[in-house]
This record gives sequence, structure tokens and C-alpha cells, in this order.
Amino acid sequence: MLRTLYWTKKGVIMLDQRLLPGRAVYRRFTGYRDVADAIKKLVVRGAPAIGVAAAMGAALGAIKVKAKDADGFKKKFKKVLDLLASTRPTAVNLFWAIERMRRVADSSGNATAGEIKKRLVKEARKIYAEDIRINKLMGGHGSRLIKNNSTVLTHCNAGALATAGYGTALGVIRGAVDRGKKIRVFADETRPVLQGARLTAWELKQDKIDCILITDNMAGSMMQKGLIDCVVVGADRIAANGDVANKIGTYPVAVLAKAHNIPFYVAAPLSTIDMKIKHGNGIPIEERDSTEVTHIRGKRIAPAGIKVRNPAFDVTPNRLVTAIITEKGVVRAPYGRNIRRLFS
Amino acid sequence: MLRTLYWTKKGVIMLDQRLLPGRAVYRRFTGYRDVADAIKKLVVRGAPAIGVAAAMGAALGAIKVKAKDADGFKKKFKKVLDLLASTRPTAVNLFWAIERMRRVADSSGNATAGEIKKRLVKEARKIYAEDIRINKLMGGHGSRLIKNNSTVLTHCNAGALATAGYGTALGVIRGAVDRGKKIRVFADETRPVLQGARLTAWELKQDKIDCILITDNMAGSMMQKGLIDCVVVGADRIAANGDVANKIGTYPVAVLAKAHNIPFYVAAPLSTIDMKIKHGNGIPIEERDSTEVTHIRGKRIAPAGIKVRNPAFDVTPNRLVTAIITEKGVVRAPYGRNIRRLFS
Repeated sequence: MLRTLYWTKKGVIMLDQRLLPGRAVYRRFTGYRDVADAIKKLVVRGAPAIGVAAAMGAALGAIKVKAKDADGFKKKFKKVLDLLASTRPTAVNLFWAIERMRRVADSSGNATAGEIKKRLVKEARKIYAEDIRINKLMGGHGSRLIKNNSTVLTHCNAGALATAGYGTALGVIRGAVDRGKKIRVFADETRPVLQGARLTAWELKQDKIDCILITDNMAGSMMQKGLIDCVVVGADRIAANGDVANKIGTYPVAVLAKAHNIPFYVAAPLSTIDMKIKHGNGIPIEERDSTEVTHIRGKRIAPAGIKVRNPAFDVTPNRLVTAIITEKGVVRAPYGRNIRRLFS
Repeated sequence: MLRTLYWTKKGVIMLDQRLLPGRAVYRRFTGYRDVADAIKKLVVRGAPAIGVAAAMGAALGAIKVKAKDADGFKKKFKKVLDLLASTRPTAVNLFWAIERMRRVADSSGNATAGEIKKRLVKEARKIYAEDIRINKLMGGHGSRLIKNNSTVLTHCNAGALATAGYGTALGVIRGAVDRGKKIRVFADETRPVLQGARLTAWELKQDKIDCILITDNMAGSMMQKGLIDCVVVGADRIAANGDVANKIGTYPVAVLAKAHNIPFYVAAPLSTIDMKIKHGNGIPIEERDSTEVTHIRGKRIAPAGIKVRNPAFDVTPNRLVTAIITEKGVVRAPYGRNIRRLFS
């Protein structure tokens, strides 16, 4: 299985996704500041993978804390978590993972600093292992929605590279393929950072899953020609009412799917659902540097000084979502009630 | 005024649009084969500009024909026209311009080959001058649809660079600006060839028209935020029923505009309307080389060997078109009847 990131005694190893598909370079990170920087700079990306990376970063930070006692440790560990939490605002898995790590430290009773550190490392590795297991569960549930001999459109990369392994949206596709279905995938290239062209196309090619790359603005035309049977995407944060924040360009795909009566599925673990946010418009949307739009792979493509907008995500309202695929099963409208039930 | 291409005694001068926005290089073309190649390779692009380039290419070809008499000339001239007609299949202005040149040759009565050549050069220069005049007429008609202080979304480049000058869609924007209106433009970058980022952004910046560049997949989000008041695009071919073939990505913009109750306008001269084609699905759509998708400005962005689709155009059905702006005025549904009237 393709390894996106993993824990070793000598640090966290992460595949530097900025260099794909040209080169597959693994880097070792030994400090939490470096991990925070790697999250910011997209060495690692994808909501579940960001969560796992943050947990492992927190564990690395914990190990290096020098403290006399447990209280001193917790004070310094809070700074570690705060820095990791400041890296990216939209993917809620980041805050979910940090919260889990915080709770381990806080509920440590009379444990010594040394014992807490061990528990934190264990928790980070548990989050990692859980993520793969959850993705395979999602793959199983979701595979039932994908018909044999069908063509799936996906946007961005919600694959093994966006998770600890197997993937969310691509996990659903893998789930269908693993169950013997013949699936063809259209991958949107996903400007500006080209996660579709660079990561999804690469990942599916590695797995020998039939993949056709298109620019984002071709999806409508492919739907119009009747070439797309369903859409499966991941999510960076889902509000309590089922509104979905995901990579910029997801919302137009959902509008197009609706206009062509094509099912639009979102695959995401429960850790992506933010019950504290009622509606999608409450989800903070990261606006990234303008050079992501004006330059591609280091080459300028637009005139100097041009104004740019660069929101990294958009929000798809729940009415455009046919179903949300989670590790606890497939949820449909009314989302408010049915999502609440997932957590009970 | 920005010059896209023009006639000189020593040949046709064309701005090499492949090098924009980095460099503004004018090249001289002295043979019709070179002009055909320039059209194919996108030195010059945009339906009206392709028409003008083809007419000038035909004139260049005519000049160099060696023939004893008018009949011998016409035989050789036919080959010139056939090569020019084989360059690109979608923009009907190409065939329209070639047809005009053919008619000049065919209706030459007892003229000598030398006289016919002179008439062909005159006709090419007439097509050029007419195009600018027509664009300014469209700008006048279209400007009435654009409210003061409004924000217009445009896709691809239907500007001065896509015509002999002034532009079709950008001509409408210029028409509004020239009449004292304050207009802001969102420009889709328009993958794969990036005409929006490279050409529209550059052209509007030269003219000091307020322009914000976005990737194609951000248009939906901008509409959702209420930032877009109307859409204006050009066209490569319009069927008799008002279906519009235009740069790939236009159709999704039209679907999104409809979903947000935003007017969707198409600006195109009568020479872009093909009365011989009843519906949009009869319009031939050019599929271009896969490297346009897998590479950007010479840099590979996708894994080697990945399958690609690369249709250069899509078709927007007439029901999504609020109005078509022509040099003879603004046409609305029912398009079949109202377009027919334009030609009578």
C-alpha cells in the first residue's frame, strides 16, 4: 500500500507531495515546528492526513518537552498544540486530532511526564491506524453505491495521499474495484495546486485503476455527453446540517451534477463532521497566496501585478448532496437529523 | 489601440499570443502556409481573428500564385483556401472568411489574374476593417446590458486579441467603460491554454480596466458569494437555434449563471452564426493535443502515460443564454425566429 506518512522511532516520515508526480521523495521530520511547516506548505494535505500529521507532530513535540513534572509538561505541550492548530483553518480533522491529543494529556491523572509522552505517541499511532481502518469501512459502504461498469468523476485528491492510506473518495472507488467492479475514473486536474493531475492521476495509475485526466472546466462537457455516472469527492469539513466544505471547484461540480441528474456523493469520516457548526457559511475558508494562481510549478502564467482571488475551498449546500458516506454507513437527507444519529 | 494582426505590403504582422503575457513579440508572415501553421499553433486565436488571419493568408497565397490566366489562378487559389480551411474545425468565422475570399475570386468576370489578386488583398483588408467596426457596434449595443458599478465574469479571451481589435465580449465591457460606466471584471484563467490568465488579464491591465483573475473552478464560488452581476463571453460558432459553441468551460459557467439567476450574455458578430447548422450538437468540436493538459508552459504536471480528454470547446444550449449581442442589435429567445430576422 502507498504510504503517505508514518511514525518511526526516529521521527515522522512523510511523502513530499509537492514533488509528485515527478518524484516520490520521503522526508523525515523530527520536530513539531517542521511538521507544522509541512502542513502549511502542503508537503502533506487532505483533511484526514492533516489530522494524522498533526497528531504525530504533537507526539514529536511532546517527546522533546523538558519539564519537571506533569503540570509543567502540560503547559509546554499546550504551545505545541497551539502552533499545530494555527497551520490551516478549514480542515476540521486538524482540530479534531489536536483535541484528541489534548484530552490524552489532560486525562492523565497522576501519570508522570514520561508516561504522558508515551501515551501521546500511542494515541498518534492509534489515530493513524484508525484512519486506514475507517477508510476501508467507508470503501465498503460506498462501494454499494457505485455500479459495475460505471464512470466516476472525482475532484482534487481524496485518496491514499489525503489520508493515512486507502483514501476517502478514492477509498470508495477502491472499495468498488476490490469487490470486482469495473470502474473508470475521470479526474479533475484541480487548479490551482493540481492535486487531481499530480496526485489522483498518479495514485490511480499506480493502482492500475482506469483514469482519464481533464481540466476542471471539462467536467460539465463530459456530463453533458453522458460520460459520468456519479461523482464522489472528499470533504474538509461538514457542518451539522450536511453542508460540505471541500476543495475549491467542488461546488460547481455539485451544481453540474444536479443539472444532469447525476448522484453527488461525499465520502468523509465522522472526524470531518463539525457538529459545532450549524451551516456551511459558518465554516472558515482559507484564502491562500496569490502566486498559486499566477504561477504554475514556478512559472508565471499571468501578468505581473494582476489582482487574484484564491479561496482554497468552497461550500456545497446539502441540497446538492445525494449522500454522505461515512465509516458508520451512508447518510441521506434530512441531514440534520441523520447526521446527529451517527454520533449517538 | 492594441494590434492583434494587420496587413502590410511586406506581409501579415501578427502578435505571437503564445508568448503573452511574458513578451509581446510581433512576427511577419509572408506565405499562406505559415499563416495556416500560425492558426493551428495558436499564434493567433479567437474566432474573428482567425477569420481575419485566414483572409489575409488567402491574400498572401493569391499574390504568390503563378498562373497564365484567371482560370489557372483560380485552380491554384483553391488549394490555398483548402489548406487554410483545414487548420481548425470549430470557429465558423474561418470558413466564412474563406468563403468571402472565394466569392471574390469566382465573381471576377473577365478580370486578369493580376486584377483578381488586387481585389483579394482589398477584400482581406476590408474584412479586417469591418471586424473592428462590428466590434464597436456590438460594444455599443451590449453596453446597455451592463449596469454601472457592476462586476462581469468572462471566460477565455474574447477581446482585442481574439479579433482585429476592440473585442467581442471585452468589446461589450469596453463599450460600457467608454460610456463612463465603472466595471469590474472577473477573468477565468481558462485551462488548458490559459487565454484568460495570459491574454484577458494582460489586455485589461493594459487598458486599466479593473480585473481579478481566478481559476476556472472558482467562478461558482464567486457567484455563490454574490460577487458576479452578469457573464459575457464570446463564441466560436452559434447554431441557427442559438446554441453556442465556445471555449471549453463556457457551458459550466452558463449552468452556474442559471443556478444563481445571473444573466449570461454571448457577444458575437453575424459571421459567427452558422445558419446551416440547426442545433449545437451539429457543431464539430476540435479535440486538441493531450500535452495541452499534461503540460503547462512546457512543464509536465501529470504522470507520464496518463489518459487525457482535451475538447477545445463545449456547447451551451440556447435555454441558458439570456441574450446574444450582435452588430445588428441584441437578440433574445425565441432564438430560431429572432436570429433568422437578423439575416433578412
